[in-house]
Amino acid sequence: MDRKLRYAMVGGGPGAFIGAVHRMAARLDGLAEIAAGAFSSSAEKSQETGRELHLDPDRVYGSWKDMLTKESGRTSDRLDFISIVTPNFLHHPVAKAALLAGFDVVCDKPMTLTVEEAEDLCRTVKATGRIFALTHNYTGYPVIKQARQMVLDGTLGSIRKVVVEYPQGWLSTLLESTGQKQASWRSDPARAGISSALGDIGTHCENLVHYVTGLEMDEMLADLGTMVEGRALEDDASILIRYKGGARGILYCSQISVGEENNLTIRVYGTKAGVEWKQEHPNWLYVRYPDAPEQIFKRGNGYMGAAAAHASRLPSGHPEAFIEGFANIYSNVLRTIAARNSAAAPNPLDQDFPTVQDGARGVHFIHTAVRSHKLRSWVDASYTPPE
Amino acid sequence: MDRKLRYAMVGGGPGAFIGAVHRMAARLDGLAEIAAGAFSSSAEKSQETGRELHLDPDRVYGSWKDMLTKESGRTSDRLDFISIVTPNFLHHPVAKAALLAGFDVVCDKPMTLTVEEAEDLCRTVKATGRIFALTHNYTGYPVIKQARQMVLDGTLGSIRKVVVEYPQGWLSTLLESTGQKQASWRSDPARAGISSALGDIGTHCENLVHYVTGLEMDEMLADLGTMVEGRALEDDASILIRYKGGARGILYCSQISVGEENNLTIRVYGTKAGVEWKQEHPNWLYVRYPDAPEQIFKRGNGYMGAAAAHASRLPSGHPEAFIEGFANIYSNVLRTIAARNSAAAPNPLDQDFPTVQDGARGVHFIHTAVRSHKLRSWVDASYTPPE
Amino acid sequence: MDRKLRYAMVGGGPGAFIGAVHRMAARLDGLAEIAAGAFSSSAEKSQETGRELHLDPDRVYGSWKDMLTKESGRTSDRLDFISIVTPNFLHHPVAKAALLAGFDVVCDKPMTLTVEEAEDLCRTVKATGRIFALTHNYTGYPVIKQARQMVLDGTLGSIRKVVVEYPQGWLSTLLESTGQKQASWRSDPARAGISSALGDIGTHCENLVHYVTGLEMDEMLADLGTMVEGRALEDDASILIRYKGGARGILYCSQISVGEENNLTIRVYGTKAGVEWKQEHPNWLYVRYPDAPEQIFKRGNGYMGAAAAHASRLPSGHPEAFIEGFANIYSNVLRTIAARNSAAAPNPLDQDFPTVQDGARGVHFIHTAVRSHKLRSWVDASYTPPE
Amino acid sequence: MDRKLRYAMVGGGPGAFIGAVHRMAARLDGLAEIAAGAFSSSAEKSQETGRELHLDPDRVYGSWKDMLTKESGRTSDRLDFISIVTPNFLHHPVAKAALLAGFDVVCDKPMTLTVEEAEDLCRTVKATGRIFALTHNYTGYPVIKQARQMVLDGTLGSIRKVVVEYPQGWLSTLLESTGQKQASWRSDPARAGISSALGDIGTHCENLVHYVTGLEMDEMLADLGTMVEGRALEDDASILIRYKGGARGILYCSQISVGEENNLTIRVYGTKAGVEWKQEHPNWLYVRYPDAPEQIFKRGNGYMGAAAAHASRLPSGHPEAFIEGFANIYSNVLRTIAARNSAAAPNPLDQDFPTVQDGARGVHFIHTAVRSHKLRSWVDASYTPPE
Repeated sequence: MDRKLRYAMVGGGPGAFIGAVHRMAARLDGLAEIAAGAFSSSAEKSQETGRELHLDPDRVYGSWKDMLTKESGRTSDRLDFISIVTPNFLHHPVAKAALLAGFDVVCDKPMTLTVEEAEDLCRTVKATGRIFALTHNYTGYPVIKQARQMVLDGTLGSIRKVVVEYPQGWLSTLLESTGQKQASWRSDPARAGISSALGDIGTHCENLVHYVTGLEMDEMLADLGTMVEGRALEDDASILIRYKGGARGILYCSQISVGEENNLTIRVYGTKAGVEWKQEHPNWLYVRYPDAPEQIFKRGNGYMGAAAAHASRLPSGHPEAFIEGFANIYSNVLRTIAARNSAAAPNPLDQDFPTVQDGARGVHFIHTAVRSHKLRSWVDASYTPPE
Repeated sequence: MDRKLRYAMVGGGPGAFIGAVHRMAARLDGLAEIAAGAFSSSAEKSQETGRELHLDPDRVYGSWKDMLTKESGRTSDRLDFISIVTPNFLHHPVAKAALLAGFDVVCDKPMTLTVEEAEDLCRTVKATGRIFALTHNYTGYPVIKQARQMVLDGTLGSIRKVVVEYPQGWLSTLLESTGQKQASWRSDPARAGISSALGDIGTHCENLVHYVTGLEMDEMLADLGTMVEGRALEDDASILIRYKGGARGILYCSQISVGEENNLTIRVYGTKAGVEWKQEHPNWLYVRYPDAPEQIFKRGNGYMGAAAAHASRLPSGHPEAFIEGFANIYSNVLRTIAARNSAAAPNPLDQDFPTVQDGARGVHFIHTAVRSHKLRSWVDASYTPPE
Repeated sequence: MDRKLRYAMVGGGPGAFIGAVHRMAARLDGLAEIAAGAFSSSAEKSQETGRELHLDPDRVYGSWKDMLTKESGRTSDRLDFISIVTPNFLHHPVAKAALLAGFDVVCDKPMTLTVEEAEDLCRTVKATGRIFALTHNYTGYPVIKQARQMVLDGTLGSIRKVVVEYPQGWLSTLLESTGQKQASWRSDPARAGISSALGDIGTHCENLVHYVTGLEMDEMLADLGTMVEGRALEDDASILIRYKGGARGILYCSQISVGEENNLTIRVYGTKAGVEWKQEHPNWLYVRYPDAPEQIFKRGNGYMGAAAAHASRLPSGHPEAFIEGFANIYSNVLRTIAARNSAAAPNPLDQDFPTVQDGARGVHFIHTAVRSHKLRSWVDASYTPPE
Repeated sequence: MDRKLRYAMVGGGPGAFIGAVHRMAARLDGLAEIAAGAFSSSAEKSQETGRELHLDPDRVYGSWKDMLTKESGRTSDRLDFISIVTPNFLHHPVAKAALLAGFDVVCDKPMTLTVEEAEDLCRTVKATGRIFALTHNYTGYPVIKQARQMVLDGTLGSIRKVVVEYPQGWLSTLLESTGQKQASWRSDPARAGISSALGDIGTHCENLVHYVTGLEMDEMLADLGTMVEGRALEDDASILIRYKGGARGILYCSQISVGEENNLTIRVYGTKAGVEWKQEHPNWLYVRYPDAPEQIFKRGNGYMGAAAAHASRLPSGHPEAFIEGFANIYSNVLRTIAARNSAAAPNPLDQDFPTVQDGARGVHFIHTAVRSHKLRSWVDASYTPPE
């Protein structure tokens, strides 16, 4: 590509967390530069962030609608894509408008508040032909890609059991009552949707299992808990899953597992081997066999497969981590956009990022879990998102 | 005590696993010596084990009934207790007969095949006044005792979530079809009862949670799986639990989690702190707080509480492990027996071993899980064993 | 600062490793943009890298001298600083020329080939008044800053023992004979200087100890080895150190510790507490006490000190790693440059980066170790670089 | 063997640590029973320990000389061997007298105070033809035996580097001034000899390297430190070693590495692979290759070699630890004694225990290190003990 791609961000103003991460991720490999933004619904706060980013004040907006209108009318230095990092309830309207305005989109998860919105977005992506990516960033970790490859190439055999968990402890108290920004919107049904823990971290678990194993859910039994008094949404979820083909699963996510930070862990057991990965020490993949020594696959080595190698920047032993994994999502999307822009054949390794269908699957998962919990029973969890 | 206690073993002949462990555990602290045995229903095999143990051949039997009859008639070198290490189906008849013959009993788990048998044993213990201990050996680990103490003294606050798991991989193939002794009886309903994974390892999970937290189950939803074709009993179980008082739990035990060995792990999260323990590195207890550095409590240090100290033999940093933890059950029982024998006041720290009521709770747990699985629904899991 | 700083890179062309790392580090926080480069002494290769970076071809050079001449004559879009990532032998001439041409400098380590060159650079920095930073990147890790702070605030008491090691295995074979670029120059005395392992990784060890503990060496005994036949420089070094004040040290670096990747580890033991840190899992600092549970200080938590907090981007539990640590060096330098440029008072937390004196200390360390090795004896290792 | 072997213990009375460990080790596999003892030079204290062990008071002595005299005159229930667990200065006289009295001997380390004594013991063993074993217990760990086998079978290739360390922190204060028994004799030259740290733990390091690698020392440079004021012997030692054949070594032992417990660690790097083992998590051996995933060899698996299998009691995943490793020394000796007693062919796997020559090597190591330290120079460290 002959130039960096240009993008605008919606959300990510003062006090936000994930916006800064998206910007570092977009920046890391030098493939894109931020050129505009509607960082806050307050024009003043938006300009504050714009100044920090050395943006032209004329391209900094207090309204994402204004931004889309004005930026889509530009003839020079036109934006290539929009990055959406708002609270959940804005994902659908902003993404849909951006797609319709002719922009590619990178959107944070969970994709939308409802399955209807999610499916609407699937259809919009199809209708507009734009590129859409969802930042299920954990699938960007190189050794997660290795795990996926080992499932695909049969190293694990048939999958029998999956245990995925994402315990956090940061909401062990009623943090939202203190005005803390992250806690406030995540526990507010109007902005977060019908779920807190499931939407914020449970969908990462769901997506990670799907990415690594390819398994599709068949049935689900969920037990949600609101363990901190006064909270409006669930802060703990334990879910049993039966996958099509017979594998069994446990999915556990929690915001009240006190003392845990972001201890996302996945274990996949097949007939021939099992793997384990822990996000807090993300460069190593543990592979266990019935009758041979456990192996540790370490990022950056020559024995790693093509997908993991494509997602690595450093020699083995020099750890890469969260930002690099996040950047792997961005860089794959950006190279895919650039190839499309230049009508070049895309590198298949670049086309490895979460799609709008993955987003729909995540939203359906949330709603199915809430339904199972309310019914106190096993429910049908099978789902095929619109292509 | 002025002499070592004398005991006889039922089971534990050639090819057995747990019998040798019981003997090492009974031997480690020099508190007891084996004096008799019905190691096998084959008199020849029983004598083979007797010779290895340097026993008087006259005190080695091919029938446990014979043994109880003859040994209870002795006037010198009388046995103090009977150790029962047979497959599950024999636990109840042997234990009951031994108690009625006037012996104290140490019995392996699960205690009996049915709840009826378990309650009958509770009543027999009460009626005979004998001492009865069940070898839920994981509660013998010093840092597990520390975890229990930290729950009791309020360090953790109110318990909100418990995750206990015991993944193994040794039954990932149809091992029982090869004639392997351990696999054969454990997967045979006639000898193991209605469960394989739950009985063999799930009850350890259930007991460990109860020991550490004191929580009582309220409701349960179990999903059992027989993942290896041709197997007669379940080899994988995932269970959601609601405890009285509101805590939520996940219990996962498996014999088909390929590559896992005996990876028993427990995590308990309270309002103030959480703890984690892993059997495969058993000397360390991880304690996590919302706003302070994680701590590692290590066996043998001066900051450990009385129960952990009582269960330690070596300075910190010299690891103790499975056999020592198992021996802690034995030695507590043996010192309790000796105190009773000499009419001495028992040391309260010695009275810390699993009881016949713990056994009944375990058997009830198995049957409740099987029932929930068959009904595919939440079931009442509350239970109070007879005193 | 109102704009991103602009810099040029010397070195870092096709096949290089560390150049790309410097660029990611400079890029991560959005504080600087590359504007020119002499990436290779081949003009063609230099342009190749320039194109990848979307640079103006007029600002891409085949000669660093040309670049300094032409760039220092520019009146618009002037460069702020020069980043030097060449093999060692070019560090001194390029850095000196850049400083004299009025640019600030960021330089890779070891700083120069000889102590004379190093001291000349110290004097040049003083004479020109420019800002100079050396990329001892491991001091950029947040929890290393925490360790330093815990030494400074007395948590560890007086330091008694330091063990620092950096085992690698990548030169276990005569890799340089295959033409591999990294191995070739590092084992070539003309380009690397009198040392391979010491210069490449031993100086990181030396610098890390000095940064964390403030200890100054008094005496040293070094045993260097060239363990792979045919190699021109040492690939293994074991060094005993006596520090002023009485502390003892072990420093071990190796390129033939087969199977090791970049396992830099430091342990510091004081009279009151000890700390351990491992680069391959860099977010955690282990703190050990004589009579209290071990603690794990984890990056991103509220209990971390100001220096560690200043060096963190993400919430706890989301790992940061090598690139972020490296970027912490860059961002501190860049904010220091920007403050100087705008005549603002510098933030003391920004002034935390390795200096030209640290560089001189490192070069002196290398030469002292080689001398001790040749003499097979303890040698005086005390050194004070010119201010 | 038709009966348990009988032994007497010298040392191991009230307040001792290692005596109890020897007794548990001798007891664990049911191969020996204690029959007599001179546990203390106070007859009263000796009887106190005798009573705890249920010994016949007539066979409990206040003098080891009396014991040897009387016990060697017995015609029934004769002792088979003597276990010596006294402070160091008594090892030589007791062991020599026991051998000359016709008993086999198991002796704690370091074997003697001087090289002369050590060599005298070598000659005495040869002259008497008795069996002599030294309890370098760490060589009893199964995975250490696996490491040794992997060196022998060429898995590691030629050894290039060995790093062995044994940091402890228990003597970070002047504990001996409080009267603590273990600290008192270990820091008293009259009872411990010319060394504290080297004798107590450094010899374990030396022995472990020799056992695993077979390497013989060529030269040594030692730096000893007495870091706690008022202490009579060294409490910290850092040693560089050159082995015959070219390998390099670092040996570090310390009693003032605050917060460390018994963190004995060995790393061996060859041309083809490297291994690492840590005593505090002793069931796992880490094996690292230049171009393949790291492997974890875990005790109890079918892929482990014959020596490791011979030293294991439990299935994989059920940890064994310090006492079991110690018992492996004892049980091998006991089976060797029993085979000799019954004129049976010994099992070669039983003949794997530290010998009197290993003991002489250890004592020579201590004295060489002290000499190097005093000379502040490399010294010849080669040594061949008398056969």
